[in-house]
Amino acid sequence: MPERAPVPRDPENDYTVEMAERRAAFLRERTGVSLDHVRRHSFDPAVLPGNIENFVGVAQVPIGLAGPLRIDGEHARGDFYVPLATTEGTLVASYSRGMRVLSECGGVRATVVKQSMQRAPVFMFGTAREARDFGEWLVASFAGVKAAAESTTRVGKLFEIEQYPLGNLLYLRFNYTTGDAAGQNMTGKATFAACEWIRQAHPSRPKYMLSANIDTDKKHSAMNTLRTRGRRVVAEAVIRNEVLERIMRVDTKTLFRARQVSNAGALLAGAAYNGPHAANGIAAMFIATGQDVANVSESHAGITYAQLLDNGDYYWSVTLTSLIVASYGGGTGLPTQRECLELMGCHGQGKADRLAEIVAAVVLAGDVSLGSAVLAGDWVTSHERLGRNRP
Amino acid sequence: MPERAPVPRDPENDYTVEMAERRAAFLRERTGVSLDHVRRHSFDPAVLPGNIENFVGVAQVPIGLAGPLRIDGEHARGDFYVPLATTEGTLVASYSRGMRVLSECGGVRATVVKQSMQRAPVFMFGTAREARDFGEWLVASFAGVKAAAESTTRVGKLFEIEQYPLGNLLYLRFNYTTGDAAGQNMTGKATFAACEWIRQAHPSRPKYMLSANIDTDKKHSAMNTLRTRGRRVVAEAVIRNEVLERIMRVDTKTLFRARQVSNAGALLAGAAYNGPHAANGIAAMFIATGQDVANVSESHAGITYAQLLDNGDYYWSVTLTSLIVASYGGGTGLPTQRECLELMGCHGQGKADRLAEIVAAVVLAGDVSLGSAVLAGDWVTSHERLGRNRP
Amino acid sequence: MPERAPVPRDPENDYTVEMAERRAAFLRERTGVSLDHVRRHSFDPAVLPGNIENFVGVAQVPIGLAGPLRIDGEHARGDFYVPLATTEGTLVASYSRGMRVLSECGGVRATVVKQSMQRAPVFMFGTAREARDFGEWLVASFAGVKAAAESTTRVGKLFEIEQYPLGNLLYLRFNYTTGDAAGQNMTGKATFAACEWIRQAHPSRPKYMLSANIDTDKKHSAMNTLRTRGRRVVAEAVIRNEVLERIMRVDTKTLFRARQVSNAGALLAGAAYNGPHAANGIAAMFIATGQDVANVSESHAGITYAQLLDNGDYYWSVTLTSLIVASYGGGTGLPTQRECLELMGCHGQGKADRLAEIVAAVVLAGDVSLGSAVLAGDWVTSHERLGRNRP
Amino acid sequence: MPERAPVPRDPENDYTVEMAERRAAFLRERTGVSLDHVRRHSFDPAVLPGNIENFVGVAQVPIGLAGPLRIDGEHARGDFYVPLATTEGTLVASYSRGMRVLSECGGVRATVVKQSMQRAPVFMFGTAREARDFGEWLVASFAGVKAAAESTTRVGKLFEIEQYPLGNLLYLRFNYTTGDAAGQNMTGKATFAACEWIRQAHPSRPKYMLSANIDTDKKHSAMNTLRTRGRRVVAEAVIRNEVLERIMRVDTKTLFRARQVSNAGALLAGAAYNGPHAANGIAAMFIATGQDVANVSESHAGITYAQLLDNGDYYWSVTLTSLIVASYGGGTGLPTQRECLELMGCHGQGKADRLAEIVAAVVLAGDVSLGSAVLAGDWVTSHERLGRNRP
Repeated sequence: MPERAPVPRDPENDYTVEMAERRAAFLRERTGVSLDHVRRHSFDPAVLPGNIENFVGVAQVPIGLAGPLRIDGEHARGDFYVPLATTEGTLVASYSRGMRVLSECGGVRATVVKQSMQRAPVFMFGTAREARDFGEWLVASFAGVKAAAESTTRVGKLFEIEQYPLGNLLYLRFNYTTGDAAGQNMTGKATFAACEWIRQAHPSRPKYMLSANIDTDKKHSAMNTLRTRGRRVVAEAVIRNEVLERIMRVDTKTLFRARQVSNAGALLAGAAYNGPHAANGIAAMFIATGQDVANVSESHAGITYAQLLDNGDYYWSVTLTSLIVASYGGGTGLPTQRECLELMGCHGQGKADRLAEIVAAVVLAGDVSLGSAVLAGDWVTSHERLGRNRP
Repeated sequence: MPERAPVPRDPENDYTVEMAERRAAFLRERTGVSLDHVRRHSFDPAVLPGNIENFVGVAQVPIGLAGPLRIDGEHARGDFYVPLATTEGTLVASYSRGMRVLSECGGVRATVVKQSMQRAPVFMFGTAREARDFGEWLVASFAGVKAAAESTTRVGKLFEIEQYPLGNLLYLRFNYTTGDAAGQNMTGKATFAACEWIRQAHPSRPKYMLSANIDTDKKHSAMNTLRTRGRRVVAEAVIRNEVLERIMRVDTKTLFRARQVSNAGALLAGAAYNGPHAANGIAAMFIATGQDVANVSESHAGITYAQLLDNGDYYWSVTLTSLIVASYGGGTGLPTQRECLELMGCHGQGKADRLAEIVAAVVLAGDVSLGSAVLAGDWVTSHERLGRNRP
Repeated sequence: MPERAPVPRDPENDYTVEMAERRAAFLRERTGVSLDHVRRHSFDPAVLPGNIENFVGVAQVPIGLAGPLRIDGEHARGDFYVPLATTEGTLVASYSRGMRVLSECGGVRATVVKQSMQRAPVFMFGTAREARDFGEWLVASFAGVKAAAESTTRVGKLFEIEQYPLGNLLYLRFNYTTGDAAGQNMTGKATFAACEWIRQAHPSRPKYMLSANIDTDKKHSAMNTLRTRGRRVVAEAVIRNEVLERIMRVDTKTLFRARQVSNAGALLAGAAYNGPHAANGIAAMFIATGQDVANVSESHAGITYAQLLDNGDYYWSVTLTSLIVASYGGGTGLPTQRECLELMGCHGQGKADRLAEIVAAVVLAGDVSLGSAVLAGDWVTSHERLGRNRP
Repeated sequence: MPERAPVPRDPENDYTVEMAERRAAFLRERTGVSLDHVRRHSFDPAVLPGNIENFVGVAQVPIGLAGPLRIDGEHARGDFYVPLATTEGTLVASYSRGMRVLSECGGVRATVVKQSMQRAPVFMFGTAREARDFGEWLVASFAGVKAAAESTTRVGKLFEIEQYPLGNLLYLRFNYTTGDAAGQNMTGKATFAACEWIRQAHPSRPKYMLSANIDTDKKHSAMNTLRTRGRRVVAEAVIRNEVLERIMRVDTKTLFRARQVSNAGALLAGAAYNGPHAANGIAAMFIATGQDVANVSESHAGITYAQLLDNGDYYWSVTLTSLIVASYGGGTGLPTQRECLELMGCHGQGKADRLAEIVAAVVLAGDVSLGSAVLAGDWVTSHERLGRNRP
């Protein structure tokens, strides 16, 4: 094999058009690909430190405009137009249709019910007994741990340390509120400071590892579903049968019967989500607004809970248990991303809850649309309604 | 509340600069946001039908160049430079470091071990007995079902119908190979044809629903981990202790001990992945190459399996159980996306396996890097190696 | 500490009253416990070889008689009186009440929809590619493998070998029908023979391990829920509102609303079963009838699926996905155990399906009873029905 | 079908030999089964109220004596002989072999690291916002809730109320210590009182349901694995390679390599336990000692965590996350059950921790035995050790 040819870098100042171009040339030479489109960005690479290394250009992901979606949140109130960055045809149209149904029914009530971001170190001992006793010491030492953690951040607040004893290990989950940042880095730094403080303060000077897979960062988990990661947000609406039939050509009774089958399917499959497709709206909004898109892995999880009301209306709720969003930090300040946040009034301090509410409302809209479409097309075959009289 | 103001659309031809600009103006008027950057795209909107509706502009996601990564696949062979579209600082640098470790150790062996894309309808009966007997009929009728399904597609091949009886329902999972397309739409269309054929052919004219949450589309599931969705791909390497110590400042013994703790943590947390962060590399490659980014929800799942060899080297494998990639169709033909695929020789027919191998190899690189970094910084405290002699 | 004092054994003939008494004396001397009751058994220890070692006496577990329960199975038809061995007060009474409801509604339809017992070896290779290629060889060699496996058993039939590739390993799940035996030992022996045949027949003489946690023997798993272990059995009934209200003091509408909440709870908790308490009836029947009681771990898993019918009746199904029962072998031939099996016409050859149907029907009865009782007492507070008009 | 013939009962005094005999006669007449053995019990039925209804006789489950097992617990210290009630041949012998290995290595360290028994009601509201706000009220009202709950019990102490918001529901998990009782009934009664207090105290007089599947009673769940149900107990030992090789004919290195494969298998299968067979020892001890055997469903779950030490010894831990045991109440006072508890010094007040330690230690012994046996027989084929030099 040929020698390894490293990517060109300028250790002095790598965030320049020249360096981007030099890397593009390096690739062109090796692959023959022009990169004409990748090289077309509208901003100065000088805005990029902290967001990317070895910058060579941009992925241009088309944005479609969905909406308006009427939202009745505590932070987001009114009609919203939502930028969805995707390459999947019909996605924008489908979400828009769901938004129309929901808006005609009075809109989506959206509520952030919990906020918690984690870093989860593990402390290692010789025996389970030492691990357990250390846990008791830790409870008594919470004030000191909290002070050490919070010394590293203006924003993050440590409010709980969960303990999960296992063998001679004690897994901990440090839970923080992190304001309007996603907070993974903030909590990492704070927890590292806390762990170092613990190691000095505890007589056994215990060894630890800063992360051991129970955070659980960048992956779905039962842990997250139960304990929340990021924000736990509920979007809920009462859908009128008349509206659903008119726009989606399916009635609420059929929808509710299908919900039973879908719930059983989700239980059978061990699915992270029992609704149709939370991930679609989340991914499209995350790309558009500069969120950490890898967090789709955690954020798509949730539980749909519905009731058919006596008057034939349909209460539909989606609870996203691990929605990770930020209104500043990360990619939220980049040019197109910031514009998309601003479209929804979600850029900057004090806007993350608002963004969370909008994301959850959009997810509900997408589920209403796809969940109904599946039934309109397929469930009812040959112009015959499903015989609901027979089991 | 004000009247609902619909997004401007041109039913004749909506894919024009004029219409994009008109929508941007509509937004500007309502929100005051200029959309100057969003509106800067390098291509004619006429390329977009099938990828987006209500096009208004683009998200520009910065691409960093990682690599080179030496890969020994069946389809991808050689040194690869990998475009990662992300806004998370250090991600490209971190992956590059892992790629260096792996390349110095001879590279990553990558292998696609299974391919299977699904659509999973449910058939509904009055009793469990009827459902079971229908299942037996279905086994006997496989040839007819297969013919009906495959009549809708040149590429898709139906190779198995799994049966999951539950109550008076029979959930089915139609498994297809779908060539170089992701195949969700292809299998949806084929399965719909198959279900209609079944409904005509079976004496009871059974009712069905085309999807009932066991596909499991756009969500992680135990089902996918077991049965595969998209491609099941293994990336594996033998990491030399000398290289790891030199580049990552941690030894393989420490790495292996940490693996035990991480495995226990993953079991405890019910995590979809027991390695550090598959989702990061996958999301960044998916955005760059025009994959369906919502599939990060499924694709990030997998299992890390490692062994410490007698000579101190370290066998590290990552098995992605549900990796969904395409080399044509969807967003793969859009301008920047196609360029990124071409960089890796992955655009067009016959390239999806190659892309799958590269994604898996990149995931392994990212895990080597982050998995080592956590230990180098945190595990070993006070210049003291973890006392491995004591339990 | 004192020297280790081994339990007295007679290597010649250990299954005698004398040896049991000698062990009891050994214990009496050390602990002062008389063992008067433990020593009271009604049978000759000579019947015990193959069932126990170091026999010292018996646990006398009280048996209560529940029923009659009307069952409409393919193997069990008629009214059944069910022996439940338990020490939990109200259990027999509660199950009896559910049986009354079901019987008055026409009884329980019970159906075995699948049978499959496993042993799951793992084959180990140097690379994933070798593992995958071995898998292809294995498919082509099924006839030989089957012959080798079935050479060890008159009853067991190998009908499928599932493949789960992971890293450089290939996990296999050998699926057998095992007639009226539970089959864990039978399949272990057969699979061992098959693996040895494979090792001889395959050019690489691959190494293997006979079990690696995916069987999954004596533990609940998502695998079992999906793929079945033992028998997959459905019990289903249509419960008339009038009967439910009269006997259980709750109506079907309330029951159905509670089902929604319970389904969401099960999804949230990651529960192995979404009904009230399958384990109670299963454990009590397993003890009474000489089943392997440790299999409660697998057998209690399942999925409840229900529908509220238009006329207000309630379709309730329970699908036990991993019910392991035997009508001969194991403990089924011991004196009290055999009598209990005979009470239900379930002893001996050709009776395991019948027993499976009865167990599933009993589970449904228990769930009807407890599921209703929780609502009658607690849901409806202060003589006020839950306001079902409001979401 | 014939008329339903109810089981004979005496509403005045049903716990007599006469009534047991009358029921036996009733069965004899219908089935022809003598019930000679079932009718042979050594105690007066007058001891049975609170343990069984419709008593007809006993299941005689053979008890084998395993041990001695050296335990170094905080409550159990010394050499223990363990009564195992089972009908599975080799089980007692196998556990005994593991006990010998462990005892020769200095015994098992056993530690109860957490205790928590639950009842988990759900409160239902019109909107998620009301549910969340109620949750805040609940935190502020903890003292009142605790007083109401504890007014019903001398022993139970409410120490935490977990909150799990979902849609317009708030699932709660009331966590208690319950002394030496299993506590399911105690916590049910206390939580009912607490809920009634809440309903009176909260201005909205919220509706609730006393249980909604997140307890999770009589079923395995991710919830239990994380949050504990009953007792969380660790059994751990350092196994000397020399002892293992001598008694089990396998070395610790082979054992550790197999652990990697078993961990990967457990992750793949979504197994509730990643060791060989906790359920066997637990079920056998539960039957012998009058525990609620249905709790095998919860109690068998856990996590094995192991390390190969530098000197070749092997640290092996088992953490049972949901072990439910009692030393009084339930079936613990019945004649044979009490004798078996007394054999281990585990009957009566203040003994439940001791029993929990012994059960965990026994589980470890069984896993050492079976885990080694699988390798001695199968892994190593043709007198050849697994080539551990190659990946």
